[in-house]
Amino acid sequence: MGSLSDIGLAAGINILSALGFLLAFAILRLQPINDRVYFPKWYLKGIRNSPRHSGNVVSKFVNLDFRTYIRFLNWMPTALKMPEPELIDHAGLDSAVYIRIYLLGRLKIFVPLTVLGFCVLVPVNWTSKTLENAQEVTFSEIDKLSISNIGQDTQRFWAHVVMAYVFAFWTYFVLYKEYKLIASMRLHFLASEKRRPDQFTVLVRNVPPDPDESVSEHVEHFFSVNHQDHYLTHQTGFWGLWGKTLDAIDYHTAEIEKLSKEEDAERERVISNPKSIMPAAFVSFKSRWGAAVCAQTQQSSNPTLWLTEWAPEPRDVYWSNLAIPYVELTIRRSLMAVALFFLTFFFIIPIAFVQSLANLEGIEKVVPFLRPVIEVQVVKSLIQGFLPGIALKVFLILLPTILMTMSKIEGFTALSALERRSASKYYLFLFVNVFLGSLITGTAFEQLNSFLHESANKIPEIVGRSIPMKATFFISYIMVDGWAGIAAEIIRLKPLVIFHLKNTFLVKTEQDREQAMDPGCLEFASSEPRIQLYFLLGLVYAVVTPILLPFIIVFFSFSFLVFRHQIINVYNQQYESGASFWPDVHGRLIVAMIVSQLLLMGLMSTQRAPQSTLLLGLPVITICFHSFCKGRFEPAFVKLPLQDAMVKDTLERATEPNLNLRDYLKYAYIHPVFHSDDIEHPLAIEEEERNPLVATKRNRSTPGDSKYASETSSDINF
Amino acid sequence: MGSLSDIGLAAGINILSALGFLLAFAILRLQPINDRVYFPKWYLKGIRNSPRHSGNVVSKFVNLDFRTYIRFLNWMPTALKMPEPELIDHAGLDSAVYIRIYLLGRLKIFVPLTVLGFCVLVPVNWTSKTLENAQEVTFSEIDKLSISNIGQDTQRFWAHVVMAYVFAFWTYFVLYKEYKLIASMRLHFLASEKRRPDQFTVLVRNVPPDPDESVSEHVEHFFSVNHQDHYLTHQTGFWGLWGKTLDAIDYHTAEIEKLSKEEDAERERVISNPKSIMPAAFVSFKSRWGAAVCAQTQQSSNPTLWLTEWAPEPRDVYWSNLAIPYVELTIRRSLMAVALFFLTFFFIIPIAFVQSLANLEGIEKVVPFLRPVIEVQVVKSLIQGFLPGIALKVFLILLPTILMTMSKIEGFTALSALERRSASKYYLFLFVNVFLGSLITGTAFEQLNSFLHESANKIPEIVGRSIPMKATFFISYIMVDGWAGIAAEIIRLKPLVIFHLKNTFLVKTEQDREQAMDPGCLEFASSEPRIQLYFLLGLVYAVVTPILLPFIIVFFSFSFLVFRHQIINVYNQQYESGASFWPDVHGRLIVAMIVSQLLLMGLMSTQRAPQSTLLLGLPVITICFHSFCKGRFEPAFVKLPLQDAMVKDTLERATEPNLNLRDYLKYAYIHPVFHSDDIEHPLAIEEEERNPLVATKRNRSTPGDSKYASETSSDINF
Repeated sequence: MGSLSDIGLAAGINILSALGFLLAFAILRLQPINDRVYFPKWYLKGIRNSPRHSGNVVSKFVNLDFRTYIRFLNWMPTALKMPEPELIDHAGLDSAVYIRIYLLGRLKIFVPLTVLGFCVLVPVNWTSKTLENAQEVTFSEIDKLSISNIGQDTQRFWAHVVMAYVFAFWTYFVLYKEYKLIASMRLHFLASEKRRPDQFTVLVRNVPPDPDESVSEHVEHFFSVNHQDHYLTHQTGFWGLWGKTLDAIDYHTAEIEKLSKEEDAERERVISNPKSIMPAAFVSFKSRWGAAVCAQTQQSSNPTLWLTEWAPEPRDVYWSNLAIPYVELTIRRSLMAVALFFLTFFFIIPIAFVQSLANLEGIEKVVPFLRPVIEVQVVKSLIQGFLPGIALKVFLILLPTILMTMSKIEGFTALSALERRSASKYYLFLFVNVFLGSLITGTAFEQLNSFLHESANKIPEIVGRSIPMKATFFISYIMVDGWAGIAAEIIRLKPLVIFHLKNTFLVKTEQDREQAMDPGCLEFASSEPRIQLYFLLGLVYAVVTPILLPFIIVFFSFSFLVFRHQIINVYNQQYESGASFWPDVHGRLIVAMIVSQLLLMGLMSTQRAPQSTLLLGLPVITICFHSFCKGRFEPAFVKLPLQDAMVKDTLERATEPNLNLRDYLKYAYIHPVFHSDDIEHPLAIEEEERNPLVATKRNRSTPGDSKYASETSSDINF
Repeated sequence: MGSLSDIGLAAGINILSALGFLLAFAILRLQPINDRVYFPKWYLKGIRNSPRHSGNVVSKFVNLDFRTYIRFLNWMPTALKMPEPELIDHAGLDSAVYIRIYLLGRLKIFVPLTVLGFCVLVPVNWTSKTLENAQEVTFSEIDKLSISNIGQDTQRFWAHVVMAYVFAFWTYFVLYKEYKLIASMRLHFLASEKRRPDQFTVLVRNVPPDPDESVSEHVEHFFSVNHQDHYLTHQTGFWGLWGKTLDAIDYHTAEIEKLSKEEDAERERVISNPKSIMPAAFVSFKSRWGAAVCAQTQQSSNPTLWLTEWAPEPRDVYWSNLAIPYVELTIRRSLMAVALFFLTFFFIIPIAFVQSLANLEGIEKVVPFLRPVIEVQVVKSLIQGFLPGIALKVFLILLPTILMTMSKIEGFTALSALERRSASKYYLFLFVNVFLGSLITGTAFEQLNSFLHESANKIPEIVGRSIPMKATFFISYIMVDGWAGIAAEIIRLKPLVIFHLKNTFLVKTEQDREQAMDPGCLEFASSEPRIQLYFLLGLVYAVVTPILLPFIIVFFSFSFLVFRHQIINVYNQQYESGASFWPDVHGRLIVAMIVSQLLLMGLMSTQRAPQSTLLLGLPVITICFHSFCKGRFEPAFVKLPLQDAMVKDTLERATEPNLNLRDYLKYAYIHPVFHSDDIEHPLAIEEEERNPLVATKRNRSTPGDSKYASETSSDINF
């Protein structure tokens, strides 16, 4: 348990190191040679050109204009200046809403909570004498500021109970306002969108086999009968049979020709083989109204056939999962639920196993011929010092990928859904292994075991009791993991190194240089759950140890600044889902509130505060609040209201009476493997390039475009 | 703990008393004077006429044809003879599916379980020597047949584990088949129905207020814009402002005229007053397809406005709940959830309070002037003996009404939904207070307290341990509550007495006699949860004490026979929901399976059987099975597939091209208070009378017709 000055010192060191990162960033970003690392978004939009074309040799690589170094912190106000509507236009709604999470955390929830906490709870805690009177207990100033200092003086707990209610109601108010605002932003965004293929299109899965008709004919007949006034056209999906990956960076024309022929033959084979047609189709309608109706209704009396849902936008489709039968889907999800349970609670077992192998005797037994190398003293100490930690580190680095793979096995058909699903899994993992794991000693499965053997009302008490004691630990966690992590994010070390390596050894044409650039994107699946962990810490400690809150505010402010800069200058989103992740974000905040309320109750009952039963109402109110918000706002993220569809249809009919929708939609949904030049260029894509929704330069050679679309063929048409 | 012969004796006595009831029934039903008590359904259908019109005076009241007495058990084969399609035609799908629950329980689940249990588990238990070797333990033969007799001989537990899995998989199989069958019966039933108003109609609630338009105009405009090709017409609902109840049995013509005028004036006032219009409407479409689309989609971008759902059939509408705003609904449901919790766990407190008042001193204090009466010895002992029990009994009799009132407060708009909801509440009550209450000593809130203070894995152990000991108790419970209850059901004592009283003192015309007849109906809300209790007992004891199963089989067989007789000859259902209750029935069976599996696990772990962990898989498999069935079949009970709607529409257009649907639907949904003769007789109702869906004689003077429609006006038009 550190004293206040210890914490202050640590905070100082962390702030200094963060400032160091920022300084490094400020200098690196000014160098022309790094321009494509720190401003890739502008390149992709075609607005920025390489500053290296002009000037002398040195100034191509190093910025010699010293005036710019004086204004090196300029990027901060610039990042904040762009107004929100322009930001949505520039980076998309997903990104704009994502950084609102930081704003929500900082300004709207934790600043008022901190002010109240410091005005009311800190004086109440500080002026109590329990810890000072207890002779044998060692305590720190942090403890004196926390609820631990109240002890027998139970009248003072009234302050905490009242504040718990005030905090909860303030948070409800903020969350309600935010959910309402984002729902209306989404509806406004959808309403003001240009014409896009997914507005007219529905994804149909589990088309039943028919002995007399091909899948395509069957789809056509079914929808021309059952949606006779609205059906327009459809496209069926193909199996993943398109063969080997081809490397685009290949200069020999002869080679290219040969490969192109093979590619054509393969494509020909796939198209002509009826077995390679998936029992799934993208069905398009004459109006948005018709599509909205089909997406929201049940088609067949067997609810596992002819399943319809909104088509994701073309970039967002995850093609490999389109053709999973219903029964298989149930089995896959059940298996993944069991797997997630084991992964969360028992991941330590295989790691411990690897660690047990990773001692010297183990390695020598497995690979005896390496003995001479291992016995060298330097290698020996290296192995002994690093290996055990490395197994865990490698696992943690791989974890988001593992979780994403599990979500893919579960069979979601859109990348956005996959990311949302992986985020839920990651949050569970962090909650159990970081939050509970830090509060209770022992591994996750030891905790699980002890929880199973404890009574239901004892669990919050056990966890609650250790909360005040861990405040110092979490303060350093916030500084080391949070502050430093964000500072590392802005400097983009990995893309920086990789870009320069590629640039030096591989890049030969301007096209190559474009490809060497890795703009990256907001990794929702891994970064959102980590924000949620800070929300959880903030809500749990708001009443218990308010001194922790300023550290969280610094984290949120800093993150807000950095990510706003990144989405303006760097990230290039893969797809646009219209903030469809907000119900998940809201749901996890509700979970954090309930956890914090239960733990406060547990903590107060271990201190024999008679007021603790008064806190029973809070989780109940929170659950009611959640069910209210869910009914009130969630449909806006799931369904498209018919009224809105009708308004857009009517408007379009009035302004463009001669629109040929069939041509527009003809090639909107084709598997990325067929995005080749010999297939006529889709009208929808052309139009989107002229009138981009999110103004990105839709260059199909951008590495991001088909990154997930199909791992086996990601480069076939470059 | 009774011995086998004790149980046999009790069973004998119960069977004899049941036979006594049956004999009484067999004789009573043959008397012409009781004809309207035991065959009301046939009267309502207009097929049966009073047998009292012919013959001499005596034979009008007593059956003198002794040949009929010889065949007095004839009703049993008759009840079983009617084939199922005819039964559906005669009594409706609801009733036909309801008695399938008994068939499911008897033949399909418990007969095979009993056979297996007696062949495998009974010998395994019986031949173990644990109880005989334990000198100090008293035990009965029942115990020797149960799992308690295994003790240290843990190898034998393998039989129980294997049988638990066999039983579970057999039950899955049966439940799956049954769900599938009933889903297809429902779809077939809906597909073969005649034209009915609810097929074309959608209930719209929460119509937003508009400053310039009335509710009716607003509805018309909204739907003519947003469903322009499909909207036909609408009817708006009225508030409950229609004034006092009028008594139909009134002979003075002058009086009638006066009342009729008042009634007309009142009705006029209601119609002309804009404030009495509810913000809810029944909106009708040109086709079933149009209605299906509107019912399944979201209309407005605010999901709490313009809420659409399938209109219940006109008889099924619960008018008072049509106009509840969304926020109020959330609050009402939350409050009722809390109320249900307290009712279930703390109902004993007010009863104990009443009981404490109900001693002699208490009464004398409250009503001192009654002292002379109370001091009489007979009255005194009566009060002391009965009063405490009476408070509980009155509560239990009122309980279904209380639960129904709570469901009404929750705001459901259809009687069928109200009944389903009340059934869930009643099941919770029975589960906690009868099932758990018998297994664990102490009141429900003492149990709750002890559960909160026990660890999660201890709870199944505590409950599980007492299961074998309570087998004898539950066997007598089944005989007393189950067997005798069913026997009492068939004799219809209450309607018998009331009919004869009315007949003697009130009935003056043939019309009166028709009204004095009370056919009753299947009380789903109170009887289904009680069946579920027997399912629960059967599943819990199937592995533990198989000897209990035959008693359950007798209950199910007997019930099946009696209820099949009743739905053929007696009951007159209020509404037809097309077996929409099946998902609830299935869900509660799943709950019973999970409970039985957890308890078996708990029981075996208290006996230190190492195999108990093998049972962990069962609840997991059960949950997966449930989620599979839910996805596979539940939509058939909630949504109408567009394909089916289109088929019926197409067929109708071909056969009746000149149908005037607007006239047909004109007065289909009008509040029962406006079912008066001066309003033109609705075409839909006329047609339904000519082509009745369920062939009942739709006489609007049947007491059942508007029994629930509105308590304040139930007799206004008689």
